[in-house]
Amino acid sequence: MARDLSPLFAPASVAVVGASDDPVKWGNWLARGALRGERRRRVYLVNRRGGEVLGRRAYASLGDLPEPPGLAVLAVPPAALEGTVEEAIGAGVHALVVITAGAADGEAGGALDRALAERARAAGVVLLGPNCLGVFDAGAELELVSNDLPRGSIGLISQSGNLALEIGTIAADAGLGFSRFVSVGNQADVQVAELVGDLAAHSETSLIAMYVEDFRDGRAFAAAAEGATRAGKPVLLMAIEHTAATARAVASHTGALASDSAAIDAACRAAGIVRVHAPQELIDVAEGLLRAGAMRGRRIAVLTDGGGHAGIAAALLQRAGLSLPRLSDGLRASLRAELPATAAVSNPIDLAGGGEQDIHSFARTTSALLDSGELDGVLLTGYFGGYAEYSETMGRSEAAVVEALADAAHATGRPVVVQTMHPQSAASALLRRRGVPVFRSIERAAAVLARLAEAGERAPQGVPALPPRAAPLTGSPPAITGRGQPVDSYTAARALLAAGGVPFVEARTVGDEDAAVAAAGELGYPVVLKALGLLHKSDAGGVAVGLRDDRSLAAAVADMERRLAPPAFTVERMAPLAGGVELLIGARWDARFGPIALVALGGLLTEILEDVAVALAPVDTAQARGMLLSLRAAPLLQGARGRPPLDVDAAAAALAALSRVAAEHPELAAIEINPLLALPEGALGLDARLEPA
Amino acid sequence: MARDLSPLFAPASVAVVGASDDPVKWGNWLARGALRGERRRRVYLVNRRGGEVLGRRAYASLGDLPEPPGLAVLAVPPAALEGTVEEAIGAGVHALVVITAGAADGEAGGALDRALAERARAAGVVLLGPNCLGVFDAGAELELVSNDLPRGSIGLISQSGNLALEIGTIAADAGLGFSRFVSVGNQADVQVAELVGDLAAHSETSLIAMYVEDFRDGRAFAAAAEGATRAGKPVLLMAIEHTAATARAVASHTGALASDSAAIDAACRAAGIVRVHAPQELIDVAEGLLRAGAMRGRRIAVLTDGGGHAGIAAALLQRAGLSLPRLSDGLRASLRAELPATAAVSNPIDLAGGGEQDIHSFARTTSALLDSGELDGVLLTGYFGGYAEYSETMGRSEAAVVEALADAAHATGRPVVVQTMHPQSAASALLRRRGVPVFRSIERAAAVLARLAEAGERAPQGVPALPPRAAPLTGSPPAITGRGQPVDSYTAARALLAAGGVPFVEARTVGDEDAAVAAAGELGYPVVLKALGLLHKSDAGGVAVGLRDDRSLAAAVADMERRLAPPAFTVERMAPLAGGVELLIGARWDARFGPIALVALGGLLTEILEDVAVALAPVDTAQARGMLLSLRAAPLLQGARGRPPLDVDAAAAALAALSRVAAEHPELAAIEINPLLALPEGALGLDARLEPA
Repeated sequence: MARDLSPLFAPASVAVVGASDDPVKWGNWLARGALRGERRRRVYLVNRRGGEVLGRRAYASLGDLPEPPGLAVLAVPPAALEGTVEEAIGAGVHALVVITAGAADGEAGGALDRALAERARAAGVVLLGPNCLGVFDAGAELELVSNDLPRGSIGLISQSGNLALEIGTIAADAGLGFSRFVSVGNQADVQVAELVGDLAAHSETSLIAMYVEDFRDGRAFAAAAEGATRAGKPVLLMAIEHTAATARAVASHTGALASDSAAIDAACRAAGIVRVHAPQELIDVAEGLLRAGAMRGRRIAVLTDGGGHAGIAAALLQRAGLSLPRLSDGLRASLRAELPATAAVSNPIDLAGGGEQDIHSFARTTSALLDSGELDGVLLTGYFGGYAEYSETMGRSEAAVVEALADAAHATGRPVVVQTMHPQSAASALLRRRGVPVFRSIERAAAVLARLAEAGERAPQGVPALPPRAAPLTGSPPAITGRGQPVDSYTAARALLAAGGVPFVEARTVGDEDAAVAAAGELGYPVVLKALGLLHKSDAGGVAVGLRDDRSLAAAVADMERRLAPPAFTVERMAPLAGGVELLIGARWDARFGPIALVALGGLLTEILEDVAVALAPVDTAQARGMLLSLRAAPLLQGARGRPPLDVDAAAAALAALSRVAAEHPELAAIEINPLLALPEGALGLDARLEPA
Repeated sequence: MARDLSPLFAPASVAVVGASDDPVKWGNWLARGALRGERRRRVYLVNRRGGEVLGRRAYASLGDLPEPPGLAVLAVPPAALEGTVEEAIGAGVHALVVITAGAADGEAGGALDRALAERARAAGVVLLGPNCLGVFDAGAELELVSNDLPRGSIGLISQSGNLALEIGTIAADAGLGFSRFVSVGNQADVQVAELVGDLAAHSETSLIAMYVEDFRDGRAFAAAAEGATRAGKPVLLMAIEHTAATARAVASHTGALASDSAAIDAACRAAGIVRVHAPQELIDVAEGLLRAGAMRGRRIAVLTDGGGHAGIAAALLQRAGLSLPRLSDGLRASLRAELPATAAVSNPIDLAGGGEQDIHSFARTTSALLDSGELDGVLLTGYFGGYAEYSETMGRSEAAVVEALADAAHATGRPVVVQTMHPQSAASALLRRRGVPVFRSIERAAAVLARLAEAGERAPQGVPALPPRAAPLTGSPPAITGRGQPVDSYTAARALLAAGGVPFVEARTVGDEDAAVAAAGELGYPVVLKALGLLHKSDAGGVAVGLRDDRSLAAAVADMERRLAPPAFTVERMAPLAGGVELLIGARWDARFGPIALVALGGLLTEILEDVAVALAPVDTAQARGMLLSLRAAPLLQGARGRPPLDVDAAAAALAALSRVAAEHPELAAIEINPLLALPEGALGLDARLEPA
């Protein structure tokens, strides 16, 4: 059952420990913030020197307070932290917010964090931090933060104080703000997942926004976020990505492709989280989702009064993956009847001065577009928002148009988004109040519309449960040995995956020429010969394909013996390469999110294309199919340019089976099949590899 | 020789024809604007009703003025336009700015435009418009525009008034403005190319920015822009793109890939133009180029005081193609010596509160980074810019740090770019005045740094001269016939290109089985059989590869005869496909920019990859080589994963030859080789196609 976090957000009383008169100290900011909520609760200032702070009595210790404080916020020197926590628990506190950074990072810090968390939990106290930047709850008028924050309906969780501050200033400009802000610090006790769960049930929060550096239990985090999105609250995540340089250091393709960032993407898909990469983008998408909501399709009409904006917007929308459909003859005729002869009633729709002549034409046109059913949203771009500069009368008319635009959007449930060169005008403020997103730049408006379409398309895939752990592979024959890479990684991976239900091309492991020739006799020519024990067999010249007879096979064995001296070989039936497409399927264990499955185009193009789909493992066949079809290269599977369509179901079944095997084997860092040959009928693993953790 | 445009920008006197007291009319805005320059020149207001306008005498006609007006700006009803132009010419005007939209667009409008231009040129008068929105020259205090515009060093040419207005508001926020603004309207007389040439010589213009819908002679435009960039003035272009839907309608791959937008890209590469796609991006890039200038490499250090911004900025910079190199041990040690123990002196560099403690550490660290030679630029991100909020003393220190940052940037010639959550602070204003670009959002700062790196890398490739036109192909054997597609497009294209120096696989055109078998006898098995007269031979089943003997060749001929009844066949030597990479090379004539050459990966992936390089044709071998190596798929050519490198020079020679053939044949809309097989030695055309204009 979820823990009650109300002592943290709506305490009966607050004590500020380390309260100070010095205006550049945390103890000062926190005390002033706490006092702003004084009409809601008693506030006690504590400073070990006693005396007065901010013209009030300063208690020398928490023990001196006239009542047990509901919440104590600690801004004390690191050396005093543990003692102060004890003192607070002794004084009967229910929640602790620890600003103090504690010890340095690293092991000593970790040990202190664990000690603090254990002590708090044993006492039934909720502890936020240490090393956090406070907590803010608009409804409860709790302001234990360094700066004034705008009020609104966004629940913000952040691991960076400065980013939260920046997000706040951007939100304020957009007329948005926070229902609650929690700085989680080191997450010694309260962690992000718990806070997300709490915000999902917080009636004053309509959207959850996060900046997270450390996910802790990533699956628990994803599950909490999934709960919030299913409860109708969009969840937006800005996360630190590890660099490409880090990912490149990994040995396998799977390791490189299923990067840290890709694992976060997989969690986002599973939980229905909207991922963003910077504060402005975060607030832009929040504005779109809070004001306009998700969009039910990708068909956009662009409306403007003067050609330039129309063309710029149209190009940006199409680049962002939205479409500007041609309007039906009927709709064009009805627009034509309403507008001046010079207006362009294709899409983009350019009033060509008609808006200046009759400002109500913006509203009539928008209504007609939204009501037609031919469009999923309208982007109004250009001068609109600034007609009050012409005259007061025009300004009044513009306000009436704003009301009509908002009514049309709400009545149809289809977004109207406004880009205007007058974002600070009265009309723009009214647009925002009436629930119409307003952006200054066309690129931001176009990007948000694309995200609204994505939000309309993407239901959470669900955070899968992990299967029971299978008997670990290590130690059992075929043994995993060698420097990080198993000598027989290929045969071990093959055996494991074949047992899990992945079909492989028929093969025999052999030790010498005679055995190779005998194996080829059983399999039938042509055959492939592979030298075992090599990490990149092809690159090292350890693969010979299309061997047509005993003599060429024996020659290939002799050649590889001489060059590579492999511990053994496999002889394999030659797969019908020309009729299929080579895929890479794989999985790896992520320290935060557990097993991650991926699929990409195989062969030489894997890394050039950067065309990869990832998901939390295990995936079922339907999800695996969705991953395959989400690749840019999907047309190759579906029968590009007159070729027969390939057996996507069989490839999906192989991916699902591999993902299950990976999820059962946490002792494997990664496992991959490269290539998996997708054929018109069936799919065949041609090579495989595993990597112990 | 270039025409003297000074009558347009610095006239001795101005007459406003159609001057009005009505504050929502052009004649009012223009009259007020003209009068703001009255201390520089005499201003005459003309209104056919005479009387007074704006409290001054209104002349009933241009003929009544006491002197010939240097420039007349015309905001008269369309019906009065031609008469007023005559009147102005009769009155001895030197320049005309025609706001009046003239006739409707289309043929009648075109005829009027031509008539106006001819009349003006015959009289030696410079005519801007019709359908333009005025002209502004800061140095000459000439303000014949509807709105007040910020002053600065950007020369702006725009085909949209509203976009110019929007660009002006964004520029003003960034502390930038215009040296000159010209609205070109229909370009009846003065065209964009001429204006670019004039701005290149205009000493008060440091950067040329444009919004262009209609390039007219695109090569002349590109040549003028190349002149400006070579004279050290960056040229930024925002152009309307035709939609993907339009491009999709084209029959050949070349048509689809060398889209209208790609043709603009080709012109930009040739002329050294920086292409942008929206007003905010235009001003952001202008701010970067004007204040910081081009960057000499891609190595960036990120500096912040608090972790969140560092990670976000690092990820965005890497996504934008910049690198965050690891700092040398020496540099790390010297930073470490200057900074608090908690600071992270890897890259990103996080002062971790050290900036708050000692604000001068921002300057010391930046200087050390720039002086080290290990970095090409520094991004300072986060709170910096707002320390005056702490205290007046901090504010004064921050101003000193700004000076030091700017000095370090100027001394090293390496950009410092600041992202701050306080873009409107005094410190931010000082940064701008001292030539440091300042952005509110991290994404914009990262994008601009990437563009500065690009500007440092990309010299203009040069606008190539067109070769003399060759004898047109049409009518000469092999004839081009059929519905838009020549029946023997393949053989015609082959013959033309082979004559131009492109190597093709050896082939024989044959009419029946017997001739096919005889041809195969000459060529040697295995052979390929192709049915002629098909647009997409492979898709239609008109290609049989790997035919190994007379019997299988005869069977293939019989099969195609039955299914496709082609007019003829070719029998071709089988190319060594497995050892090469298939490319598509092609060219098409663009209505604005002339012949455009392109290269892309061939085969099934052409359209999936959207990996294409374009250039104005003809290209020489060195340029063609650069195009090939600029493909994302270039590693395939250079020997990916242990394969032998391919003969890039031979492929480049083929592309250069094709581009020359295309440039000699404007009667061909498109010509392409798909595939061109790039081999370890040489390159071979395997198929070709042409499309008459």
